[in-house]
Amino acid sequence: MGLRIGLSGAGYIAPVHIAGWRAAGAEVVAISDPDLARAHFTADHHGIGKVYDDFAAMLDAGGIDVLDVAAPRQVHVAQSLDGLGRGLPVICQKPLAPSLAEAEAFARQVGETDRFMVHENWRFRPPYRQMRRWIDDGLVGDIRHASVVMRSAAMLPAADGIRPAAGRQPFMLTEPRLVIAEVMIHNIDAARYLLGDLALVAARATHADPELAGETSAALYLEAEGGMPVFLSGDMTAHGTPSGASDWVEILGSKGRITLENMRLRLHGPDPQELDYDGRDLLAEGAAATIAHFVERLREGGPFETGLDDNLRTLRLVDAAYDLADTGTGGRA
Amino acid sequence: MGLRIGLSGAGYIAPVHIAGWRAAGAEVVAISDPDLARAHFTADHHGIGKVYDDFAAMLDAGGIDVLDVAAPRQVHVAQSLDGLGRGLPVICQKPLAPSLAEAEAFARQVGETDRFMVHENWRFRPPYRQMRRWIDDGLVGDIRHASVVMRSAAMLPAADGIRPAAGRQPFMLTEPRLVIAEVMIHNIDAARYLLGDLALVAARATHADPELAGETSAALYLEAEGGMPVFLSGDMTAHGTPSGASDWVEILGSKGRITLENMRLRLHGPDPQELDYDGRDLLAEGAAATIAHFVERLREGGPFETGLDDNLRTLRLVDAAYDLADTGTGGRA
Repeated sequence: MGLRIGLSGAGYIAPVHIAGWRAAGAEVVAISDPDLARAHFTADHHGIGKVYDDFAAMLDAGGIDVLDVAAPRQVHVAQSLDGLGRGLPVICQKPLAPSLAEAEAFARQVGETDRFMVHENWRFRPPYRQMRRWIDDGLVGDIRHASVVMRSAAMLPAADGIRPAAGRQPFMLTEPRLVIAEVMIHNIDAARYLLGDLALVAARATHADPELAGETSAALYLEAEGGMPVFLSGDMTAHGTPSGASDWVEILGSKGRITLENMRLRLHGPDPQELDYDGRDLLAEGAAATIAHFVERLREGGPFETGLDDNLRTLRLVDAAYDLADTGTGGRA
Repeated sequence: MGLRIGLSGAGYIAPVHIAGWRAAGAEVVAISDPDLARAHFTADHHGIGKVYDDFAAMLDAGGIDVLDVAAPRQVHVAQSLDGLGRGLPVICQKPLAPSLAEAEAFARQVGETDRFMVHENWRFRPPYRQMRRWIDDGLVGDIRHASVVMRSAAMLPAADGIRPAAGRQPFMLTEPRLVIAEVMIHNIDAARYLLGDLALVAARATHADPELAGETSAALYLEAEGGMPVFLSGDMTAHGTPSGASDWVEILGSKGRITLENMRLRLHGPDPQELDYDGRDLLAEGAAATIAHFVERLREGGPFETGLDDNLRTLRLVDAAYDLADTGTGGRA
């Protein structure tokens, strides 16, 4: 019999997780959400046998092999610790915690043998895996510049007056750390995956929409090993872009140059290649690949690619970006 | 009778200038170049009456109303001073001097009533004029991010083994300050034209091609007034790009978003617009508009848009970029 999953959270991302577990040969057998009606709706729709409005009650009931935390970020740490404390492997949605300090306090409580991974699905999206293969195969050569641009109209009011992202995930209206901590965190992590460790040199953030608590636009200047410059910019109120987050990536190397224009991935150079991901659901594919990796490492052992130590490196860059942006100097002191 | 122009330099850019003067109702009546054969070739081709291998001899002969300096950068200052000293209005190709120190020394010798302008033609290209009109008309709103990306394969060896840019302008093989001082200087100036004064926060430069004296790749992080972040990146050995310098620009504002993708200019937002410059010769159009501006201001008075003070601001950013890139820290100390 396959792994039995207990899922905390029945929000926007829950169905994507449920499908990912099923594709990996596992089954969500229990779901908990303080909004019981929403938990029942999801359970009925996906054939989940047990429904709870209380997270601890789900764990107390037993009968699950893995805890999947997809609840709001404020409870990530407490729920993950609860799961680990009961000996369950835990996978937890990003961001691991609302602040770096909470994530680091969590790290001090995680035991040597605990199995914990952050569900950071962006780097598992097929175009990012393909970029990494091209880099690993030497088709890009020595990289001398990279840029990662996230553009979205998700926080621009649509014709009905509703911001599409807020319609899907209402917490975005009141979240004080918005575009960097919620969206660009994916791009930071994916850039680390492709380019290795990064240091933040300068950052700016703009509260472009006074009706939102958080910043909707940010620009980060980072450097990879050897000082290789990396531009990272994100905007959630960008006219003329899709309502979902889309990436424009360029990786410029001595032998080849990679460009990702939303759904079109290209390798330029002596042996050009082009791959079109149009019409594919990259969120679902990335989440399924994330879960497949987690299941495979549970089965075979070995570190998780987005385990605790790795994810802390991403969170440190997120935190440093807010620090630098808040100083008003833009650059390092 | 129209203005009579003396042109110093019969290289790559000379025919573009000659056409520009003619379009402005002026005439190149004399040309000088130490390479007398090249001067004769150009003079014959364009019907220029007087040919010199000696610059001073051209000025001594008289009969010209304006000096146009299109010789190598090493002689820009000396020739401009010579022309101004004889009471001639002078227009001089960019860069004004090989170093900021020489340009500043030149500035101290230019008199109050001297008429001097740098021939900085990029900001006069039609797409840049159009971008500025959209900004001035309020169609972009408050700008919160801009990026200017210059990509070119001009210094990648082509199938014949020759780098296209070096075939046109051989000095590029031995010029120690290459991509920033020669090409990105245009983008820096154009960004200043569109966004106002800029401060440089961080810079990196890469000598990607060991057969070239200068750097071919650079990334600059700048800030406009109020800390608005501006990314500027240039590369002359970029696979899959045109052999001439091409720009990818994004200007992201509260009301609209401008994108320039090489020859296609778009305004995204409530009232989208799209302009296609494909098939047009933007170098020739920009140079002609530069010269037309110079002639108009000579006739009607008033400051030149790319006069000495303005151009020194661009040169200071160029110089600061080399300083920061050379420190190896990437960021301000």
